[in-house]
Amino acid sequence: MRAVDIIMKKRDGYKLTEEEIVFMVDGFTKGEIENYQMSAFTMAVFFKGMDDDEATSLTKAMLNSGDILDLSEIKGIKVDKHSTGGVGDKTSLVIAPIVASLGIKFAKMSGRGLGHTGGTLDKLESIPGYSISLTEEQFINQVNEIGVSLIGQTGTLAPADKKLYSLRDVTATVDSIPLIASSIMSKKLASGADAICLDVKVGSGAFMKNIESATKLAELMVEIGKKCNKKMTAILTNMDEPLGFAVGNSLEVIEAINTLNGNGPKDLLDICIEISAHLILDAGVAKSLKEAKDLALNQINNKEALNTLAKLIKAQGGDVAYVYDTNSFAKAKYITEVKIENAGYIKRIDALAIGNAAMKLGAGRAKITDKIDHSVGIILKQKVGDYVNNGDIIATIYANKEDISAEYNEILNAFSLSQTITTPELILKIVK
Amino acid sequence: MRAVDIIMKKRDGYKLTEEEIVFMVDGFTKGEIENYQMSAFTMAVFFKGMDDDEATSLTKAMLNSGDILDLSEIKGIKVDKHSTGGVGDKTSLVIAPIVASLGIKFAKMSGRGLGHTGGTLDKLESIPGYSISLTEEQFINQVNEIGVSLIGQTGTLAPADKKLYSLRDVTATVDSIPLIASSIMSKKLASGADAICLDVKVGSGAFMKNIESATKLAELMVEIGKKCNKKMTAILTNMDEPLGFAVGNSLEVIEAINTLNGNGPKDLLDICIEISAHLILDAGVAKSLKEAKDLALNQINNKEALNTLAKLIKAQGGDVAYVYDTNSFAKAKYITEVKIENAGYIKRIDALAIGNAAMKLGAGRAKITDKIDHSVGIILKQKVGDYVNNGDIIATIYANKEDISAEYNEILNAFSLSQTITTPELILKIVK
Repeated sequence: MRAVDIIMKKRDGYKLTEEEIVFMVDGFTKGEIENYQMSAFTMAVFFKGMDDDEATSLTKAMLNSGDILDLSEIKGIKVDKHSTGGVGDKTSLVIAPIVASLGIKFAKMSGRGLGHTGGTLDKLESIPGYSISLTEEQFINQVNEIGVSLIGQTGTLAPADKKLYSLRDVTATVDSIPLIASSIMSKKLASGADAICLDVKVGSGAFMKNIESATKLAELMVEIGKKCNKKMTAILTNMDEPLGFAVGNSLEVIEAINTLNGNGPKDLLDICIEISAHLILDAGVAKSLKEAKDLALNQINNKEALNTLAKLIKAQGGDVAYVYDTNSFAKAKYITEVKIENAGYIKRIDALAIGNAAMKLGAGRAKITDKIDHSVGIILKQKVGDYVNNGDIIATIYANKEDISAEYNEILNAFSLSQTITTPELILKIVK
Repeated sequence: MRAVDIIMKKRDGYKLTEEEIVFMVDGFTKGEIENYQMSAFTMAVFFKGMDDDEATSLTKAMLNSGDILDLSEIKGIKVDKHSTGGVGDKTSLVIAPIVASLGIKFAKMSGRGLGHTGGTLDKLESIPGYSISLTEEQFINQVNEIGVSLIGQTGTLAPADKKLYSLRDVTATVDSIPLIASSIMSKKLASGADAICLDVKVGSGAFMKNIESATKLAELMVEIGKKCNKKMTAILTNMDEPLGFAVGNSLEVIEAINTLNGNGPKDLLDICIEISAHLILDAGVAKSLKEAKDLALNQINNKEALNTLAKLIKAQGGDVAYVYDTNSFAKAKYITEVKIENAGYIKRIDALAIGNAAMKLGAGRAKITDKIDHSVGIILKQKVGDYVNNGDIIATIYANKEDISAEYNEILNAFSLSQTITTPELILKIVK
């Protein structure tokens, strides 16, 4: 078997066998197939695509390139969720306690933020003492004891994906649905859960800019997961505005806590209930989606979910006082109100721009080595569909630097007004 | 400017600027742009193509990556020809003396053979003493004195093309018309001629398998040449059978000499007259193609072309006796006749198979470092359209090894018979 023949086969539109895909991925991971052959291959995939079988073979080959977490020591069904990356997305902090408080095991490895999107680990580290580094044994024991753990990656999950993604990033082959799907799924499958809910963001702040491509991605990921015997759900959600009001690490943790206290923004609550319900249903704890949603809401109302968050924080070394009194969180030095200079209905709040502004304030990383400032960020005051008068406050900036004129303008420009009202739909589609 | 953005622009079907193409080629040549970016780029070009302007920019960028031969010291119009590589193609050995004997300067750098196609340099080295290595000064002086020189490459012509071709070869991006066109033209333009005639082979033994792709390639190369102020002709010629009867180095030189003696195969003579005539016309020595053809034929009839070949051989150190007595050439040890095992009209003689058989006999190279045996090869006894009876001799094998059963069968299987007569067309199209 030769790499050049496999590249040519894909280039000419033929379906590759599992053996051929494994040959490419294994050779590439071991350095036997050159980067320049792999990049020509991914460009051929960009143009010619891959069907479900090929994408599943690619996913499995990348999955098998590294460690696969063995969660068999955890009793019961293990669930996991994944978001393709949004702005203001703090759903894991709400969903994990909800499902875990119902006895469903939520064992999740999260990531850090990069660019305009935040990461769950960075958010959790807003709470002093919280450790994201547990051994695999500690991780498993904790999930068995309190039902939930949120940590950073242990071991080497899907190193082929990591190497391939770096290559795709510099060769203009990122935007390929089968490559995106197998990248996400190889890492998700390596994390060992039985049921997975994927939140596929659609819109300006997201990877998928329209519903058609997001649907294709969702369907392919669900298909790959099913072929690997996982219970799968993908939810397409609107990212034409940030999720909730808060963007920035401690600000988002506070909003998540407020949500668990029953005081969360409606869009954030709705999406958390939807995802929780699918996991509850797939775990067999409810018989219908309606029943699952009622159960999820009840765990908020009876404060069981909040208490489970507190248990999680405590188990991983964090200061529980922060959960019960959000005034404990460190405050940013400079607080500035952003005022709109026009009147009308808010038509759109460009999530990408808001995410970038937050990153520039220090809430995110432009490059991997950048340090995060947990206290800075943005609190939006309005949502799409709201009416604003000239001079109304649309956002508050929390900064630790004096000159925030660039960020101020970026936030202001993120708002588009219209004379007619827009009613955004949050949950666009469910693929199951 | 970033390579990844240029790759993406081409990937998405946009036209690249000259500046962007120069950035890619220069960066790649200097090693500043990685192989894996260049291979993704060439795969994007494979799918999205390049228009005349882009291909011309690419050609010029590769041309400018190395030395450009300055032939301004040679008086008069300098002409050159190039073949995309056929089997049995000894046309340079006939055309060069014809045009040079008319006072047109033929200053050509040739190549060696690889795979199933032969190279003019290897053929010339069948004549003891012939040196393909002249300095640029010697080359120019010789062309000024006797009107012709055929040597190997001096200096470093189009190193970007050499580096790029090696990469394309292992990444399945060879078969792209703009990449092929700019590869050929960058080297041709670097050789400094004013008028160029390209022989684009079409058929099983050639790079271009059908007339549509060959026409596109020819048109693009002619356009690139014209944009660089060259007089251009491209001739599409049939490669559904080898050219002439002889395949193998000294065998081909003998056939070329026979042709200059007025005893050449009709197809070889026709193609040599056609190409010579276009060069004669473009050099301004004739007013019409008809007049140019008559002039070319006359140089054969009056032996002026043969005498010019003798002058060329002598000037470059070769033994002129070989030109006037082809019995001087070294003979192969074993001579075997191949007999057909069926009857009918010859429909096709697979040039690729004949070329491969000759290579296996030692007439060509499987890899660059292989040594050539100048005396071995194949003399075909029939042409497409001839009628053969069962048991008729269709070829003679000249070998220096005893076991030639594999080559025998390859030659036999190269012949396809039919009960109806096929009349092959040799010159398929002229692009000017």
